[in-house]
Amino acid sequence: MSPQSPPATASSAPEPQLSAFTAGIEGPWQMERVIGVVGESLPRTARLSVVRDESPRDPTTAWVLRATTSNLRYTDRGETNALGAVQEGLGRPAAVNAAFIAIRKSAAWWALAQDERRAIFEEQSHHIGIGLDYLPGVARQLYHSREVGEPFDFLTWFEYAPEFASAFDRLLDRLRATMEWTYVEREVDIRLSRCPMI
Amino acid sequence: MSPQSPPATASSAPEPQLSAFTAGIEGPWQMERVIGVVGESLPRTARLSVVRDESPRDPTTAWVLRATTSNLRYTDRGETNALGAVQEGLGRPAAVNAAFIAIRKSAAWWALAQDERRAIFEEQSHHIGIGLDYLPGVARQLYHSREVGEPFDFLTWFEYAPEFASAFDRLLDRLRATMEWTYVEREVDIRLSRCPMI
Repeated sequence: MSPQSPPATASSAPEPQLSAFTAGIEGPWQMERVIGVVGESLPRTARLSVVRDESPRDPTTAWVLRATTSNLRYTDRGETNALGAVQEGLGRPAAVNAAFIAIRKSAAWWALAQDERRAIFEEQSHHIGIGLDYLPGVARQLYHSREVGEPFDFLTWFEYAPEFASAFDRLLDRLRATMEWTYVEREVDIRLSRCPMI
Repeated sequence: MSPQSPPATASSAPEPQLSAFTAGIEGPWQMERVIGVVGESLPRTARLSVVRDESPRDPTTAWVLRATTSNLRYTDRGETNALGAVQEGLGRPAAVNAAFIAIRKSAAWWALAQDERRAIFEEQSHHIGIGLDYLPGVARQLYHSREVGEPFDFLTWFEYAPEFASAFDRLLDRLRATMEWTYVEREVDIRLSRCPMI
């Protein structure tokens, strides 16, 4: 709210965090490969950064995708607890590999009612169940991009140790074979490695 | 995405529309009263407009709240069909009264899992069922504000004819008495009337 912004209300839960994935010549993650899985790909650059959206932009930036964290929109209480019991956070020293996967679903997906999307997402496609098989090896953060006017609906960020790379590929193979993925009309898969601290 | 924006993918469903509610001395809706129902209120001004977020800002604007339309997040297929059979759109000539209701829910609400939020929203609070009792008299549009970094979670816009004003108040009384509303930590209720065309 601007220009008169009332004081924020006190709250203990994490607020949605608007973030920007910026691709260019600077940044802590080196782009190893860019795969246009479905539809138009994204230009490969040397580096990728994840920054708060308010950060000043480097003029050498090639492209930027904005997105926000949010509450979980399908996960039920049992699933939330199961995930919470085993998942680990981003930034683990051994997790020097990352994947940035940008997804856009079709108009047909967004025209479904909540119960229909949930049924395809989990009861038919086992999205949460499949994901659980790869925790805590894979740490991840989901960002929502659709509501901030971007060309993708979701930007997903994964971090894992190099010895987990083939398991991560199996995870993606399983998800891409599901009913849910028949609604994916654009998917770009970017693999990265953390640049050594200087 | 900027500065290199790939062409948008063809799609037949409505895309989320980022909008701005701007309060000041200009605009088609005259502010009749502003009620801080729970928590801090908003400053009353002469007029309110609903514009696309990219619109140039009038320098006399007192405050702006941004939000986006999105897909429905609780409504199941049966409810979607029931609503679709009776609801009417905004902009009806006889609907010269409007209500702008801004709501923020608590951290406890956002910490709930999807099934828990749905159960409170509909099975316990009958939010959709209560709303159906007032269709098609009340036309409405829900905007999501939480994910775009604003102090409210939802901005709701209602339009109705003057003879429906007391029914609209009963609708609000019923919703505010529900379990769902125990999670509302800030609510501002602004009533407006459409300015006659000159």
